[in-house]
Amino acid sequence: MKTTILIHCPDQSGIICSVTGFIHAQGGNIIYIDQHVDKESNELFMRLESEFSLENFTMVGFQERFKNDLAEKFNIKWSIHTDDIKPKMALFVSKYNHCLYDLLSRYNSGELTVEIPFIISNHDDLSFVAEQFQIPFYHIPVTKKTKEEAENKQLVLLKKYQIDFIVLARYMQIVTNKLINEYPNKIINIHHSFLPAFAGAKPYHAAFERGVKLIGATGHYVTEELDAGPIIQQDTTPVTHTHTINDFIAKGRDLEKIVLARAVKLHIQRKTMVFRNKTVIFS
Amino acid sequence: MKTTILIHCPDQSGIICSVTGFIHAQGGNIIYIDQHVDKESNELFMRLESEFSLENFTMVGFQERFKNDLAEKFNIKWSIHTDDIKPKMALFVSKYNHCLYDLLSRYNSGELTVEIPFIISNHDDLSFVAEQFQIPFYHIPVTKKTKEEAENKQLVLLKKYQIDFIVLARYMQIVTNKLINEYPNKIINIHHSFLPAFAGAKPYHAAFERGVKLIGATGHYVTEELDAGPIIQQDTTPVTHTHTINDFIAKGRDLEKIVLARAVKLHIQRKTMVFRNKTVIFS
Amino acid sequence: MKTTILIHCPDQSGIICSVTGFIHAQGGNIIYIDQHVDKESNELFMRLESEFSLENFTMVGFQERFKNDLAEKFNIKWSIHTDDIKPKMALFVSKYNHCLYDLLSRYNSGELTVEIPFIISNHDDLSFVAEQFQIPFYHIPVTKKTKEEAENKQLVLLKKYQIDFIVLARYMQIVTNKLINEYPNKIINIHHSFLPAFAGAKPYHAAFERGVKLIGATGHYVTEELDAGPIIQQDTTPVTHTHTINDFIAKGRDLEKIVLARAVKLHIQRKTMVFRNKTVIFS
Amino acid sequence: MKTTILIHCPDQSGIICSVTGFIHAQGGNIIYIDQHVDKESNELFMRLESEFSLENFTMVGFQERFKNDLAEKFNIKWSIHTDDIKPKMALFVSKYNHCLYDLLSRYNSGELTVEIPFIISNHDDLSFVAEQFQIPFYHIPVTKKTKEEAENKQLVLLKKYQIDFIVLARYMQIVTNKLINEYPNKIINIHHSFLPAFAGAKPYHAAFERGVKLIGATGHYVTEELDAGPIIQQDTTPVTHTHTINDFIAKGRDLEKIVLARAVKLHIQRKTMVFRNKTVIFS
Repeated sequence: MKTTILIHCPDQSGIICSVTGFIHAQGGNIIYIDQHVDKESNELFMRLESEFSLENFTMVGFQERFKNDLAEKFNIKWSIHTDDIKPKMALFVSKYNHCLYDLLSRYNSGELTVEIPFIISNHDDLSFVAEQFQIPFYHIPVTKKTKEEAENKQLVLLKKYQIDFIVLARYMQIVTNKLINEYPNKIINIHHSFLPAFAGAKPYHAAFERGVKLIGATGHYVTEELDAGPIIQQDTTPVTHTHTINDFIAKGRDLEKIVLARAVKLHIQRKTMVFRNKTVIFS
Repeated sequence: MKTTILIHCPDQSGIICSVTGFIHAQGGNIIYIDQHVDKESNELFMRLESEFSLENFTMVGFQERFKNDLAEKFNIKWSIHTDDIKPKMALFVSKYNHCLYDLLSRYNSGELTVEIPFIISNHDDLSFVAEQFQIPFYHIPVTKKTKEEAENKQLVLLKKYQIDFIVLARYMQIVTNKLINEYPNKIINIHHSFLPAFAGAKPYHAAFERGVKLIGATGHYVTEELDAGPIIQQDTTPVTHTHTINDFIAKGRDLEKIVLARAVKLHIQRKTMVFRNKTVIFS
Repeated sequence: MKTTILIHCPDQSGIICSVTGFIHAQGGNIIYIDQHVDKESNELFMRLESEFSLENFTMVGFQERFKNDLAEKFNIKWSIHTDDIKPKMALFVSKYNHCLYDLLSRYNSGELTVEIPFIISNHDDLSFVAEQFQIPFYHIPVTKKTKEEAENKQLVLLKKYQIDFIVLARYMQIVTNKLINEYPNKIINIHHSFLPAFAGAKPYHAAFERGVKLIGATGHYVTEELDAGPIIQQDTTPVTHTHTINDFIAKGRDLEKIVLARAVKLHIQRKTMVFRNKTVIFS
Repeated sequence: MKTTILIHCPDQSGIICSVTGFIHAQGGNIIYIDQHVDKESNELFMRLESEFSLENFTMVGFQERFKNDLAEKFNIKWSIHTDDIKPKMALFVSKYNHCLYDLLSRYNSGELTVEIPFIISNHDDLSFVAEQFQIPFYHIPVTKKTKEEAENKQLVLLKKYQIDFIVLARYMQIVTNKLINEYPNKIINIHHSFLPAFAGAKPYHAAFERGVKLIGATGHYVTEELDAGPIIQQDTTPVTHTHTINDFIAKGRDLEKIVLARAVKLHIQRKTMVFRNKTVIFS
């Protein structure tokens, strides 16, 4: 059984030695360890991939011993994940289909080890894509008036299907705190600019107006402040004076889908940790 | 004799044909033509490289005929440049030497076809680099009190040496309107971020604080509004959570010097035109 | 009516002037002109986008006048394309679906202005994708014995549907001269390396073996010599010692689909010309 | 005292735990650990940065205990480096100055924590740069006849100054086995292509001939087979049909100097290990 353990605690002498020794003592074989110390806060972040033989390992027993032998002593916040359980990912979309197509084709190819119980959209335009891939599609319109009601419907679905995390694949609505608080650092958005430049609406128009020579895309966790959450992935591509706004939009689509897919994969692989509105991205 | 002609006028039917026909009629051979029409304003920008045999060509005669036969008819703003005259470039620096070293080593290698009559700095730290390359170095300290006086000294030097354009090679002072108005679209600055993100002071610190996954550099013409002038060149390079602010600064140096050098070369080659705070960059 | 004219002839004084003058005389308005002179061969390549009002323009008349007034005089090889006719593109695939999904989702979004009459594959694996997008799918198995017969079947289909160009979207078979000669510079292949490195089979394995720090992808026209045709597009992405061959393959998929799509779009937009096994790619 | 320990041994259960436990027991505080297991060979590579208080640490004592308590048991090949000793780097150049200028300006800025006892060149052209930076310059001409004699002169200098590693900063000569065997994985070369494409002489000419859309540079350790040694760093930059060979060369210079500098810094920081002609590059 392959396990991934994420650890976060104050850095302290002997911690790496203690953790690796513990895994060893439990009969685990460490395959990969990656760690980071935030120098400002002196906080340690660690990710361990270990292999356990099934006869020696029970999740409950391991968790209890980790808690008693390590977590309390070193004040560790931690989580353990096994690869026999696929996380459940909900997709929120609006009218643009490039990110949706990209994620669903990766999903169909087995590249994303998740379940996708459903797609939610405030428009009906992309129901045909959901049909193509035989994923349930819920059309939940959102207006100023119905926003709260719509969000409640979304929450009902999210709970019913025990969704683990949400991907906003060019969902053009602002998500409110109610949803964010239910899914802290578990809602991934793709913003079509190199944040913090051009936060908010119409970033390609703003980029065109400013005359930049690069456009970008940013995959980030959604927090209360719009487009200001922890950044997971960013990339840029060159543009020139010959490109119109429509060219920016077309070139940007390629960036958006690749950057979003990378962010989603890092999340699925448990390679992201969040601290003080920044991410640690393990290799 | 190789000439480069830059043209800017309202787009109109037959303009390309008329211009190329004119060059042809003057005995010129067009080597390269690049043109751009700004769709919003319907303005045309053109750059022509042409070869003239010396017996047929006098600058005064050509200019007069261009004016009479073309410029007035089509309402053309234009300039002509020949490669027998090297533009005069002044360097302004403070304490960081990477851009200065980079530009001077390119200059020494014959990569930059300019003259560099002098280097100005508000500190004395880099006088040794000027000595290494045997370029006159003027230490003109700048304080709040002496800012105006310092700028006047700068202007005296700029005029005395008939400087054509200025490169701020990590000159950490804000240049005032007096200088900018003397050198409109002729002062090139390197800003150490992908503008418009992180304009102003300490962009690497701000980038670190925000947790971006890319840092950037922007070469731009200086205008009244700080870090808001027309962008000539931009590039980015990836960073991770493992990088400290000092790592950002070190990685950034490589970006800054390359991006600044590219911007300077484009300017020297007359490949830049400015319109409504944006650049046309010819290929 | 928007027209795109591609021109290839020996460079000669006055040619740009003559061509632009001709378009002007025919009542056309030149929107964009891009040209290139190959210095070694002194050959000129030009691409003109022009707008004609329908009352003044007939294709037959224009072609005749172009031939008589320009082409014969300047020894021009040329072609003219109007945007009212969509080119017909055939897709050849094997078992990998990422390029196929990517192209079909772009097609569905209206990003590719082509018709796709059918998909051919030597395996049946991807028939489900064809079904998803409701494109006819022809399963034509290829073995050493049946290769010629298979190719004949392919040619029958290509002719029946009047296919203009072919895209090998990770079609793992070598295309023979018979097909290549029918479609000179009209078969686009994506090779999963930065050619000329790692031509032939298993480039990711070879790249892994060599320990490169970049992997690449190359979109090129297919010629008789394997992986040696004119390059349309290339890109690379960094890899490290931590990546396995499977990681190379996964990262490579993102490169392949983006590079192939760019190459296909350039071809569709008539922005490619081929000369001496190299491409001119207009902007 | 900051130490960097590099470890290479067969992977085995408990090894990370044992090494970190040992450092801890010696009073060291682990600042950073990075490790890699080569899956094919099952070899482990590890890099540890640790801090020791000077009262507890003597190099001789530490080395003895590491050998007795760890190295023999786990069959570890290892080395330890402290930051109080600067490695000695020799520069070999020919006629091109961009890499030399770049490295010397970094050296002057304190970016490279090395000593540079001398520069060797087969030509006298760059002696003026050595003078600018006040580094001893040895002009050792190389002809077919004098190659062996020249190499002996080089070796005398290398030994006299106790050179730790050599950087070939566009040294256009092939280095022979005699030198390579004295400095295994300690001679860094910059090759002006994305290897393995365009190995050997005149890579820009070959790249131009092939019509690639990217040019590259590769920093690698020198081995007996020309341009086939372990790759440390690679990068590419786009080119188009408009670029001449001279443009390739000019664009390439910027790549070469940046890629070489990165490779040199990784070597100085002890972030490179070599195994089976490939590198592990620690982060």
